Amino acid sequence: MGLHQFIQGLNNLENLDRAPGHFQYQQHSVAAHSFKVAEIAQILGDLEELDQQTVNWQLLYEKALNHDYTERFIGDIKTPVKYATKQLRAMLAEVDENMTENFIQKEIPQALQERFRRRLGEGKDETLEGQILALADKIDLLYESFGEISKGNPDPVFWEIFQESLTTILQFKDLAASRYFTEEVLPELLQTPFAEQERLLEVTQKILASK
Amino acid sequence: MGLHQFIQGLNNLENLDRAPGHFQYQQHSVAAHSFKVAEIAQILGDLEELDQQTVNWQLLYEKALNHDYTERFIGDIKTPVKYATKQLRAMLAEVDENMTENFIQKEIPQALQERFRRRLGEGKDETLEGQILALADKIDLLYESFGEISKGNPDPVFWEIFQESLTTILQFKDLAASRYFTEEVLPELLQTPFAEQERLLEVTQKILASK
Amino acid sequence: MGLHQFIQGLNNLENLDRAPGHFQYQQHSVAAHSFKVAEIAQILGDLEELDQQTVNWQLLYEKALNHDYTERFIGDIKTPVKYATKQLRAMLAEVDENMTENFIQKEIPQALQERFRRRLGEGKDETLEGQILALADKIDLLYESFGEISKGNPDPVFWEIFQESLTTILQFKDLAASRYFTEEVLPELLQTPFAEQERLLEVTQKILASK
Amino acid sequence: MGLHQFIQGLNNLENLDRAPGHFQYQQHSVAAHSFKVAEIAQILGDLEELDQQTVNWQLLYEKALNHDYTERFIGDIKTPVKYATKQLRAMLAEVDENMTENFIQKEIPQALQERFRRRLGEGKDETLEGQILALADKIDLLYESFGEISKGNPDPVFWEIFQESLTTILQFKDLAASRYFTEEVLPELLQTPFAEQERLLEVTQKILASK
Amino acid sequence: MGLHQFIQGLNNLENLDRAPGHFQYQQHSVAAHSFKVAEIAQILGDLEELDQQTVNWQLLYEKALNHDYTERFIGDIKTPVKYATKQLRAMLAEVDENMTENFIQKEIPQALQERFRRRLGEGKDETLEGQILALADKIDLLYESFGEISKGNPDPVFWEIFQESLTTILQFKDLAASRYFTEEVLPELLQTPFAEQERLLEVTQKILASK
Amino acid sequence: MGLHQFIQGLNNLENLDRAPGHFQYQQHSVAAHSFKVAEIAQILGDLEELDQQTVNWQLLYEKALNHDYTERFIGDIKTPVKYATKQLRAMLAEVDENMTENFIQKEIPQALQERFRRRLGEGKDETLEGQILALADKIDLLYESFGEISKGNPDPVFWEIFQESLTTILQFKDLAASRYFTEEVLPELLQTPFAEQERLLEVTQKILASK
Repeated sequence: MGLHQFIQGLNNLENLDRAPGHFQYQQHSVAAHSFKVAEIAQILGDLEELDQQTVNWQLLYEKALNHDYTERFIGDIKTPVKYATKQLRAMLAEVDENMTENFIQKEIPQALQERFRRRLGEGKDETLEGQILALADKIDLLYESFGEISKGNPDPVFWEIFQESLTTILQFKDLAASRYFTEEVLPELLQTPFAEQERLLEVTQKILASK
Repeated sequence: MGLHQFIQGLNNLENLDRAPGHFQYQQHSVAAHSFKVAEIAQILGDLEELDQQTVNWQLLYEKALNHDYTERFIGDIKTPVKYATKQLRAMLAEVDENMTENFIQKEIPQALQERFRRRLGEGKDETLEGQILALADKIDLLYESFGEISKGNPDPVFWEIFQESLTTILQFKDLAASRYFTEEVLPELLQTPFAEQERLLEVTQKILASK
Repeated sequence: MGLHQFIQGLNNLENLDRAPGHFQYQQHSVAAHSFKVAEIAQILGDLEELDQQTVNWQLLYEKALNHDYTERFIGDIKTPVKYATKQLRAMLAEVDENMTENFIQKEIPQALQERFRRRLGEGKDETLEGQILALADKIDLLYESFGEISKGNPDPVFWEIFQESLTTILQFKDLAASRYFTEEVLPELLQTPFAEQERLLEVTQKILASK
Repeated sequence: MGLHQFIQGLNNLENLDRAPGHFQYQQHSVAAHSFKVAEIAQILGDLEELDQQTVNWQLLYEKALNHDYTERFIGDIKTPVKYATKQLRAMLAEVDENMTENFIQKEIPQALQERFRRRLGEGKDETLEGQILALADKIDLLYESFGEISKGNPDPVFWEIFQESLTTILQFKDLAASRYFTEEVLPELLQTPFAEQERLLEVTQKILASK
Repeated sequence: MGLHQFIQGLNNLENLDRAPGHFQYQQHSVAAHSFKVAEIAQILGDLEELDQQTVNWQLLYEKALNHDYTERFIGDIKTPVKYATKQLRAMLAEVDENMTENFIQKEIPQALQERFRRRLGEGKDETLEGQILALADKIDLLYESFGEISKGNPDPVFWEIFQESLTTILQFKDLAASRYFTEEVLPELLQTPFAEQERLLEVTQKILASK
Repeated sequence: MGLHQFIQGLNNLENLDRAPGHFQYQQHSVAAHSFKVAEIAQILGDLEELDQQTVNWQLLYEKALNHDYTERFIGDIKTPVKYATKQLRAMLAEVDENMTENFIQKEIPQALQERFRRRLGEGKDETLEGQILALADKIDLLYESFGEISKGNPDPVFWEIFQESLTTILQFKDLAASRYFTEEVLPELLQTPFAEQERLLEVTQKILASK
């Protein structure tokens, strides 16, 4: 009840691999992913402020940092399972909430419980900060899949993830931060030479052109 | 449609770690676990035959070898999630079945589909072979948790797994194979010296005495 | 003497790497290899039954599962050493047999010793099941070497293993299972795009054409 | 110049190990450490607010998240070197600043440069947020060293790190967050059973008593 | 034929693990072992010179550095196999020699072949340098097994290796270097606290007392 | 004071990775690097003797083997920092010397201290042996960077290291050993097929042509 269990649980996130089951040249832990998402969200927040938007920074950092904490309770449920039916998705969300609520009541001091409810709840809402989180999460996923493709990973799943991430990023094109990413950052990412570069440029052009 | 996807999928099982999220001195893949369960089931089948039971060996090997193959579709869902409610459990089982059925229809030649339905379905039924599978699965889990305890892993989860496995093994005490394990194999396992040996012996005695 | 040493030894097989000395993107343990060979043998048995052959399934699973167990006694002796002279090969086989026999007498209960002699002996005999084992062993080796080639491993040894495996598989062309593999599975394996794909297709065509 | 180099550099932090040269059961990357420090700083900020302090959350998250980013430029310089002489320490700091400034001018868009100067500069200043960062950094170090001690690491360096961290934490005892940590969290941390538990409790008591 | 194959082969030694099959907290490669043996031999040579012996340093370094190079040809053959019968041991030695000779003739320029014959031949002869090599090899083995014991490895094989190494070191007690090791270095090694320390001290005393 | 700390420190060198921070398919430890440099120096010494030079073999082996031992005290300081200013470089060298001297006085017996001062001092001086060490160090670095390039590592840093190493090797062209390397060994290294081969050949030709 002294916050120790919350801190100790951070270690579980260091031991949770992303994309389990698929061979990867470089494994990423949920802890490292959370760090990168918070760093990327910070940049996206900068870009939104340059575009005259008002960013609630406390909320933004909080959302980005904690958005995958509850994975230590529920484990990695593969996307096709999670989204199999609306009903199942709703039930899994409910179990997640129950386990999180249970953890909060058992391990977080009363005076802090309300804060942890906010932090460990679903972060990707309709607020600007929620949208930035969703965007940052996909940008890190795009970098992770690009890392595998550029190292020569023949598993087609990383090409699918790259394409799916980029497609989602484009859906946020109302945000200046999203436009900046596709116009300024993405071209730089793609210009380091690697064996499959031409094929990836082609795929990327096709997605960009279709919007 | 030429069985390639089934064989390729074995590689996913080499990349799926058991007990994700928990620090372990020695990681075990789902592939290695499946091998060990099949080997242990073979021994348990021997012991049942010595006890005058009739073992369907084809069924036994088949069950043991394939019992975790579908983890490549659904990923690792943590036990407390899986068993949160009866309804959720039923729905997850249904999703599992649907994905498996879908895979069979898409990747397995028609003439073999019935066999794969049997192999990839739930193996732990009421038959002797189903019971031996359940027992072998728990014995390997007990060895895995013992491996962490005897190496000095301070995470209490491995003590819980050890106790839970042993308790389940004792529930199969109608099987000669189960009795042989607790009477002949377990004492040998516990006699190698290691730092926490006394505490583990105590816990084990308590469980054995309570039955 | 309570079978514990046999079970504990499975853990040694998880710690034995295949192809030691060579850099590999993905390591395979002897335990995971044994699992995959048993799974592949199961498929090959299916194909033989479709071809109206009678398969002794107990024997097939038993052979596949246990065919590398004795590696924990003798370690990895490189192929060129093993086959240096007929006399040496015979002597190594004799040592292997002696160590295995010694293990059986010391660690396996009397009533089960005959079974373990059969299981831990040489499995690749002239029976249908022995031939299927030999074939399955090579198919897994081909997949393992393909995994390295398609990930970009520049060590020429994996090209040699790929070619040697395929050549051996073709020697079993009297088996329907072998023909099915080269006609239906192999083409699917080779069609995922990867950096060296063209060169591998060429090599494969040359081997297939020469038969 | 499109922020790509900053994001790409996060990957370097995933590849930088903490405590290089020392055998560790569990490696921690600088990326995962940064994540944990930000999470711990968040809790400490909570505790300060409960103690009626005013926390600038944007500044706190920013400091915690970015405090080790420049390690990708300068690498890991061992503590005894870093503190060898006052003059050397000052020179190293100067080099660090120069490289950081150089990076900012080359890779960060003009409009964001001032922000990155603040974020990549020294975070551990006399502000409340700077003190919380210093405290959070030591708490994570204490958890990391405790992780090695409780797993049985015989390298005395982890006992030294544990003691040095705890001593520094006690120096912040004017902060409610520091007192909460030693009074509520630390006892919970030390109560999981492990082989060297008694010796560690003794060492801890001695440090606590001396303050 | 330009020495490239010899240099490239050093990489194989980085990929060859010592003690394959046994779980180890810290793996050691044959390359790192060779480095350590050369460093230890250097110290032992110092001690012999202090004892008024004449050391041929070129020979000593050469023997120590190259003593395991041919493992890349023959792989790891387990000790019980290697020593099963005198005849087998002789045959294996012959195969080793043949493969080495073959390598030398194919890959080493004529003018250097004699040197490589000397370097890649059996180094542990009756010369002072040969004895120092044998001693250094065992001292590193003792440190490696001590490393596992002090980290809590429950596999009894490391206790056996520790005892066997120490026994062999004592057989060289005519060398001042051996006496120095047991009298000055060993006590320092054993004084770092670790969980099984008392039991190891007891075992060590027993071996020392028996000489 | 019984040389134990020196031997124990070799283990730190097994735990120090080369090129920390950069993703690498194959990690190299400082221990393995030291082994390879000593082996390569041995070959270069051979080539110099063939060219009628007199090689002091004791000095050569000693220099090669120990040239990175002090990295365990000072850690890995990234090259751009090390060379930031002449003054800083001198100061770092001074700190290194002080720590080394301190270690020698505390841990090495008086009668051996002079030897260890020589061995742990800067080895790359103007002597033939010092030049061979500098050359061997760069050749191993060239092999390490080639290993990453040929496995498909997209990080441009390995192309930079390859080019920088080759440029330095060419600066030693007064040595027969250096000329032999570029004329006989390098072409053999580059002829194994790998995905980026053409681009690497082009870069190499350009460097060779510019001399």
